[in-house]
Amino acid sequence: MANETADQYTVTDRTTLKRYAKRAEYDRKVVHAILDEAFVCHIGFVADGQPFVIPTGFARDNEQLYFHGSVGSRMLRALSSGADICVTVTLLDGLVLARSQFNTDMNYRCVLVFGKAREVTDSEEKAAALLKLTEHIIPGRTQHARAASDKELSQTAVLAIDLTEVSAKVRMGNTNDDEEDYSIPVWAGVVPLKLTPGVPIPDPRLDSALENAIPEYVLPYHRPVEMAP
Amino acid sequence: MANETADQYTVTDRTTLKRYAKRAEYDRKVVHAILDEAFVCHIGFVADGQPFVIPTGFARDNEQLYFHGSVGSRMLRALSSGADICVTVTLLDGLVLARSQFNTDMNYRCVLVFGKAREVTDSEEKAAALLKLTEHIIPGRTQHARAASDKELSQTAVLAIDLTEVSAKVRMGNTNDDEEDYSIPVWAGVVPLKLTPGVPIPDPRLDSALENAIPEYVLPYHRPVEMAP
Repeated sequence: MANETADQYTVTDRTTLKRYAKRAEYDRKVVHAILDEAFVCHIGFVADGQPFVIPTGFARDNEQLYFHGSVGSRMLRALSSGADICVTVTLLDGLVLARSQFNTDMNYRCVLVFGKAREVTDSEEKAAALLKLTEHIIPGRTQHARAASDKELSQTAVLAIDLTEVSAKVRMGNTNDDEEDYSIPVWAGVVPLKLTPGVPIPDPRLDSALENAIPEYVLPYHRPVEMAP
Repeated sequence: MANETADQYTVTDRTTLKRYAKRAEYDRKVVHAILDEAFVCHIGFVADGQPFVIPTGFARDNEQLYFHGSVGSRMLRALSSGADICVTVTLLDGLVLARSQFNTDMNYRCVLVFGKAREVTDSEEKAAALLKLTEHIIPGRTQHARAASDKELSQTAVLAIDLTEVSAKVRMGNTNDDEEDYSIPVWAGVVPLKLTPGVPIPDPRLDSALENAIPEYVLPYHRPVEMAP
C-alpha cells in the first residue's frame, strides 16, 4: 500500500512515463487539482478481450475515486469483476502554435489511475459517494436537490478505485521550437483554452416565481472568463 | 465493410448501446461533427493484459481517423500490433441541474470507434495525415509553420483507424425530472459549458515586429463567447 501521507505517489512500472519523462508528475497536490477540476473521466476496461473507453462523471474523496452507473450495465459488470482498469482524466489548456509543424502541440494536464475497481456495497459509503458525485458537478446542490430514494439507490451501482498507482502528465507554457526555427518570420505562441460556463438556462417548466431564484452556488459558474497566462 | 455512402453507420454488437439506447446516434453527419469539433481523443488499448487510456490529438480525413506519436512508444507499439482498440471522443456541453440528485446529469456528445489501427507507411499518405493533424488543431497553420523534415518524419509514427464500427451518444436539452419532482421549489436548469479560447499569448522569443502580426487563422479563436441555448 502507498503511504497516504506522502507528498508523492510511488512510481510503479505502469506509471512510469516512457516518453516525455520530464512531463511526468507524481505530486499528490498536482494530481488532486486535476481530478477536482475535471467533470469527466474516461474509464478503460476489457470485456471479452475488447478494450472499451467510456466517459463518465466521477468524484474524488481523499484517496478514492468514485463513479456510478446503472446496475447491470456492461461497464459496471466489467468493473466489478475485479479486472485491472485505467481511469484517465484530461484537461485541455491551450493550443501551442510553434514555428514548425513538428513542434505544434497542445497544453494539457492529465492523470492516469491504474488498479482494480471495487463495488461499494456499504450503504453509508454508497450514500456518501453519491453525495460527492452530485457535489462534484456543482458544490452546494445536494442542499436543494431531492436525495436518492431507496428505489433509486438500488438501481444505482457505485464503484471506487484507490488512488495508489497514479501519474500525471503536464505540458504547459510556451512554444518549444528548435533553435534554428526561431528565425522563421511567423507569429508563434499559445491560444489558451478553458471550459467556460455560459448563462444558466432555466428549465422550461420552472415555476416563474423561481426564474430569478438562481441559487448562489450556480452563480460562480457564470463569471466572466478569466484566463491564466 | 460498411457502405461508406450510407447516411448511417451500420450498427454492430460492439456499437449497440445497452443503456439509454435513445441517446444512441449512428448518423454519419452527427459523428463527423463531434470528431471535427474535438481536439483530443482517448485511445484505449491493451498491453500485457492491462488496459491503457491515453489522450492524444487526432484528425479525421473522410472515413479515417489519424493519430501520431513517437516511434517506439508503448501506445504506438501496441496499436500497430493489430489488436482491437477503442477510440473515444467526448465533448462536454453542460451541467444539468435537475430537481433530484438522481436526475442530475451532464449534457455531452461522444463518439466511440472500434477496430484495429494500421500504421501508415506510405510516405504520401503519412505526409497528408500529418498535415491534417496540424490543420485539425488550427486550420491554416500549415501555410506558415515549417513542414516536417525527413528526420522528423522518421521519428514520427502515424496510425489510422477506419470509421467503420462507430456510434455516438448524445445527451442534450433540459432537465428530465420525475413528474412528482416538478413541484419541488428549487431552481432547475442547465449551465452550458463550452471550451473557449482566450487572448493569444505571444511566445516570449517572438520578434517584436511580429507581435501584432497574428495570422488571420488565429483570430477566429479569439471571438466573444457564443453560447447556444
